[in-house]
Amino acid sequence: MTLAPVLARLDADLDAALDRLMALLRIPSISTDPVYQPECDAAADWLVNDLASIGFAAEKRPTPGHPMVVAHGGEGGPHLLFYGHYDVQPVDPLELWDADPFAPAIEDTPKGKVIRGRGTSDDKGQLMTFVEAMRAWVAEHGALPCRITIFLEGEEESGSPSLVPFMKENADELTADLAMICDTTMFDGRVPAITTQLRGLLAEEVILTGPSRDLHSGMYGGLAVNPIHVLGRIVADLHDETGRITLAGFYDDVPELPEAIRAQWDALGFDPARFLGEVGLSAPAGEQGRSPLEKLWSRPTAEVNGIWGGYTGAGFKTVLPSKAAAKISFRLVGEQDPEKIHAAFVKHVEDRLPAGVTAEFPSGHGAGASRMPTGAPAFEAARQALSEEWGMEAAFIGSGGSIPIAGHFQEILGMDSMLIGFGRDDDQIHSPNEKYNLESFHKGMRSWARILAALAE
Amino acid sequence: MTLAPVLARLDADLDAALDRLMALLRIPSISTDPVYQPECDAAADWLVNDLASIGFAAEKRPTPGHPMVVAHGGEGGPHLLFYGHYDVQPVDPLELWDADPFAPAIEDTPKGKVIRGRGTSDDKGQLMTFVEAMRAWVAEHGALPCRITIFLEGEEESGSPSLVPFMKENADELTADLAMICDTTMFDGRVPAITTQLRGLLAEEVILTGPSRDLHSGMYGGLAVNPIHVLGRIVADLHDETGRITLAGFYDDVPELPEAIRAQWDALGFDPARFLGEVGLSAPAGEQGRSPLEKLWSRPTAEVNGIWGGYTGAGFKTVLPSKAAAKISFRLVGEQDPEKIHAAFVKHVEDRLPAGVTAEFPSGHGAGASRMPTGAPAFEAARQALSEEWGMEAAFIGSGGSIPIAGHFQEILGMDSMLIGFGRDDDQIHSPNEKYNLESFHKGMRSWARILAALAE
Repeated sequence: MTLAPVLARLDADLDAALDRLMALLRIPSISTDPVYQPECDAAADWLVNDLASIGFAAEKRPTPGHPMVVAHGGEGGPHLLFYGHYDVQPVDPLELWDADPFAPAIEDTPKGKVIRGRGTSDDKGQLMTFVEAMRAWVAEHGALPCRITIFLEGEEESGSPSLVPFMKENADELTADLAMICDTTMFDGRVPAITTQLRGLLAEEVILTGPSRDLHSGMYGGLAVNPIHVLGRIVADLHDETGRITLAGFYDDVPELPEAIRAQWDALGFDPARFLGEVGLSAPAGEQGRSPLEKLWSRPTAEVNGIWGGYTGAGFKTVLPSKAAAKISFRLVGEQDPEKIHAAFVKHVEDRLPAGVTAEFPSGHGAGASRMPTGAPAFEAARQALSEEWGMEAAFIGSGGSIPIAGHFQEILGMDSMLIGFGRDDDQIHSPNEKYNLESFHKGMRSWARILAALAE
Repeated sequence: MTLAPVLARLDADLDAALDRLMALLRIPSISTDPVYQPECDAAADWLVNDLASIGFAAEKRPTPGHPMVVAHGGEGGPHLLFYGHYDVQPVDPLELWDADPFAPAIEDTPKGKVIRGRGTSDDKGQLMTFVEAMRAWVAEHGALPCRITIFLEGEEESGSPSLVPFMKENADELTADLAMICDTTMFDGRVPAITTQLRGLLAEEVILTGPSRDLHSGMYGGLAVNPIHVLGRIVADLHDETGRITLAGFYDDVPELPEAIRAQWDALGFDPARFLGEVGLSAPAGEQGRSPLEKLWSRPTAEVNGIWGGYTGAGFKTVLPSKAAAKISFRLVGEQDPEKIHAAFVKHVEDRLPAGVTAEFPSGHGAGASRMPTGAPAFEAARQALSEEWGMEAAFIGSGGSIPIAGHFQEILGMDSMLIGFGRDDDQIHSPNEKYNLESFHKGMRSWARILAALAE
């Protein structure tokens, strides 16, 4: 089974592949908002039908939340499991989008053609790269090059509450020789990459309650405790003046970066001024005495993702509010244990509660960091295939984002993951005007065809 | 012109007076939200018509914002100017109301009958007490007991942007011998009061901008500055560990409470445990080493009235936001100058801005504190009239709330103000389920009839 006709077919069928992607992108499958439950369901149905059309035995599998899509096809060779997610981030603030986020379109930009819309890069555009590679392979050769399981999730953007139970219940079915996860970026617009080091994530929410109802700040101010002030202290005290996180024991399980990896990262020529300049920032923040890539890929962080309390509408309302709240995420590295960090965070909050203020912690779930076995032969074979497609030496890199699934595959199924994606840093995932370069989509499909050929050999 | 038949008529016509009040309460005149501009206008029209029906020469007077209502009537005796405001606070969070805020109704409660709805206590119910007293006076005696000007504002809950320019342009018309302001509370449910000491108010908003767009906290966290963290520091640093406000020079113009007034306040038997217990709080907050009434009436405060930034919806979104903002109000006392405090606040913020974060200050308007001449004969005459109506010795008290109009009357028109109101501490003004006791409305009307008789003598 040769590669060349598969690549030729991917080139010839690009427009049809784009039509299919657009159909999937038009489904507003926002998993975190219960209003969009039917749309998440519709996206799963669409994928089941599409995978069945290629010859997969594909099913929508129920969970207490949004359904999983599981599909099996091919035989012989290594058993590869491909993972992606069909759910997308919310679109607010909607007014900052230049067009309807769910009316995707191809745009000409100074950096080339892009596909614009929510989910183009994270993750519908990415997951369709491997689906299209498999479609072309089957069309040319009548069968897949090896045994393949496809596993698509609908809750990745909302904390994946059903994922671990589903994996445990279906461990035999989902265990393969290697997982292929397509939800990451290239190193830059030219250099393809396999992400081999991922930060973990602990998602916290803290809700403070002071007075039992909103009060008039004139009638009560100065005597009644204001929960926003308490929250301000909790947020301010998360970091010390050197940018280090103050939770007790937070750095106990954080390893120093090995010199070999530091040298490799230094050689990548990362330009922090350009990286930050693109988002309007003039200076790096964060932990003092650490290199920019170290901060992004191998150091833990604490970020307040949202804060609210009191009157936030137009004009003024002199309210002393009953409640104030924040959503805070911790990126974890090395052996940091989400449960231990959760306990330290609860203590950080409780140590700062004056009499009359109570705290609730409705979240507090998370996953630790992951590091992949870059010495395994499959990693070198995939790296070689990527290098050939892009005409640039592919890199083993770290990622600041968290893809907890890689940790779950390791812990629950004893399976390593290869993280290969074709996103760009400027894709504006999780932001207005998300896009995916047309080149990422096209060369992404071709990359998977090459990797399939290399691994199935 | 005797008082007794006026009081008898107020008793006999109570139901008709309530019908009128209900009609005014049904108009959702929320001044801070531009959506309700037509309703603010309708409330002004309603009042013009009602005052004209009593015989006032009443007019709706345009401003760049919501209109003023000005009415003239009566002759001879002292010239009294009566002030109230027809606009109301927003109603959010609407889900905490037990009924439509603009469908007012009389309710039986364990503490007696109350009128429930937005604006019942602040300030439509209160301003109608003096209107009803004047109506009854005219009905019995064919004329008002002295020269009266009525001046009703529609922007009191939104910072009164048109007030000062309007007063300056119409200074001759509005200048009277004494202003009567009906927008305050009694000391408690039994003891009527004249408020003679008012905190001022400086309303600030600060909007911080870090990155030029919302970022993925995994891809940028640790290297890009998070404006919520900066805002947390700004909020946390507003107070030191003893509860004192840290702005440079903040206490320069704050006088110590005179011993005579401290003794009078101590004699009022204020019970902070009950006051705070009613709103679910177990312990006082605020400045150490100050008595509870001192904290509420004669010490300055800084309260964050609202804070927001990042993702605040359901579920989780790992965003590193571009913007974070807070609304902060300062209650001012003594000779504290709003402009000086504004400058100190701006410096407090700017001193805490790291590279890459900018701050905007779209608000920053305010008014200083007021203290009334309690030795003037009119004050003692009014106090006597209140004591007779309520059967309890009326008190001269302070108020934590800010009624900037009293300061403007003093500064622009050279006119003292007498602040008499019949609100209760548990009226939940600015909160869901606002109410006004039926007794406040009824005895309030009767109190004004007595005060008119006493001052017109």
